Amino acid sequence: MNFDLENYLKTLRPWIEKALTHYIETSPTQSALLTKAMGYSLLAGGKRLRPVLVFAAAQACSEKNPLELKDQVLPVACALEMIHSYSLIHDDLPAMDNDDLRRGRPTNHKVFGEAIAILAGDALLTEAFAVITQTPTDKVPAATLVGIISDIADASGGNGMAGGQIIDLEAEGNPLKPEELEHLHRCKTGRLIAVAVTSGARLVQAAPPLINSLIQYGQSIGLAFQIVDDILDIEGQTETLGKTSGSDEAHQKSTYPALLGLEASKEKARGMVDQALASIAHFSTAADPLRAIAHYIIQRQS
Amino acid sequence: MNFDLENYLKTLRPWIEKALTHYIETSPTQSALLTKAMGYSLLAGGKRLRPVLVFAAAQACSEKNPLELKDQVLPVACALEMIHSYSLIHDDLPAMDNDDLRRGRPTNHKVFGEAIAILAGDALLTEAFAVITQTPTDKVPAATLVGIISDIADASGGNGMAGGQIIDLEAEGNPLKPEELEHLHRCKTGRLIAVAVTSGARLVQAAPPLINSLIQYGQSIGLAFQIVDDILDIEGQTETLGKTSGSDEAHQKSTYPALLGLEASKEKARGMVDQALASIAHFSTAADPLRAIAHYIIQRQS
Repeated sequence: MNFDLENYLKTLRPWIEKALTHYIETSPTQSALLTKAMGYSLLAGGKRLRPVLVFAAAQACSEKNPLELKDQVLPVACALEMIHSYSLIHDDLPAMDNDDLRRGRPTNHKVFGEAIAILAGDALLTEAFAVITQTPTDKVPAATLVGIISDIADASGGNGMAGGQIIDLEAEGNPLKPEELEHLHRCKTGRLIAVAVTSGARLVQAAPPLINSLIQYGQSIGLAFQIVDDILDIEGQTETLGKTSGSDEAHQKSTYPALLGLEASKEKARGMVDQALASIAHFSTAADPLRAIAHYIIQRQS
Repeated sequence: MNFDLENYLKTLRPWIEKALTHYIETSPTQSALLTKAMGYSLLAGGKRLRPVLVFAAAQACSEKNPLELKDQVLPVACALEMIHSYSLIHDDLPAMDNDDLRRGRPTNHKVFGEAIAILAGDALLTEAFAVITQTPTDKVPAATLVGIISDIADASGGNGMAGGQIIDLEAEGNPLKPEELEHLHRCKTGRLIAVAVTSGARLVQAAPPLINSLIQYGQSIGLAFQIVDDILDIEGQTETLGKTSGSDEAHQKSTYPALLGLEASKEKARGMVDQALASIAHFSTAADPLRAIAHYIIQRQS
């Protein structure tokens, strides 16, 4: 594979940034401060991994290029970033992880106060569903959109991301077994990453067997992503990470390095990436962006 | 009009309670405590005004009876109650209104702690969108559902209910002008009540002119409802209300009685109910439930 991921991201990220800015600026809210708080977290950069995955999965299943896919993919791609952004705002709250730093800047509640931060998260989550409904129906059948909304709500709610956050909170101070830690991460991070991939596939009407392969791919890179996050929390510098390194240890959180050791954790992350690649081995070169993203996930430094 | 609202509510409320219980029990979450916290607030009784309005509006536009409408109406009806319930949990948080009592019981965060209360609200909001997608598509076209999801997200987010909560917080200690107070209530309470009515109409494919009349009806009863809430906060007993009476004054909140006086507030509420009735005057007797609900809103004691 000789795919230029850097160039791919250089194409997609500006589209995503522009669309996210558009949604924030054109969705009126009742308070300039609320809009500002929503934009503060949503438009603070970040890898935009979930939106990029929506594009890459749509491409893998349709053989179309990103420009051809742009109109039908962007709303759902942006909605997933809005949900991710809401979850970070709420996770950072004093009642939750009580974090002061995110992406190199003070967390939302540090700048805007707790009440606005809670509501900015609520509004981003709500707005995400409104944005999905802006997908052009001449390109994506309404029944497909309803299915995607169902999947995304399921992956984000009490049995997915929000449920994972509860497990995380309940586990503080109680060391988890490796399989419990894996389950936590599959919920808290893995399911939203997996639903980004499957939503991309559904947006181009991919056949069910392709979607099943992509669920495997998504769950594997989701877990790899989280293991690498744990490793970076130990090895990374606060400056590069943009969040306080060592904060897992400070919160007495179970992590892969703590449970398995650093080398075994790296090995496990590599194994997950291999699993991800194997699950899409039968895809054409149209899946090269997905393959490159799988490699990128364990090579990243932040 | 000789419509027996009490009997109507006696039919609908058990369906709504049963369906809400079903959604909580059959939507697995990752934590028994999270499920319990969600159910604690969602299944704590309440008037179920929004779900009842979905039924009444569907009936007004279709001339079908509640039993005939049940399957196609219940998921959206319950979703609106879940969104209402999430908003109460978050509004009661210490960083927001810091209320200890709701529906005669300690507020969610008083029982489960702030972290769980925030996540229970988040999960109820997310689950609401999942529940909407369970509407049977043989009865409601997918394109209609997508439109309803768009409306509900818009009415609940930064330009609707969540936006109204921000105006409310920003106004604490700063007396509002009457037109500002009306705008606050239209956002915070009125829009979700109005979208309950229009969603009911959309679920039965009502023609746009009917929907426009129902928007007027919904906005008027929504405002009347809030004015009566303000009056009950002064005149009501904590015991009957189930929440602390006099709490508006304690929070230095602008209220209709404070701005207009008690008698003028009652007059305004009656005027709003008259407006609501006028906007559906051209509907048949199938709209009698809507008419009876408008009367009930200013006669209620809690």
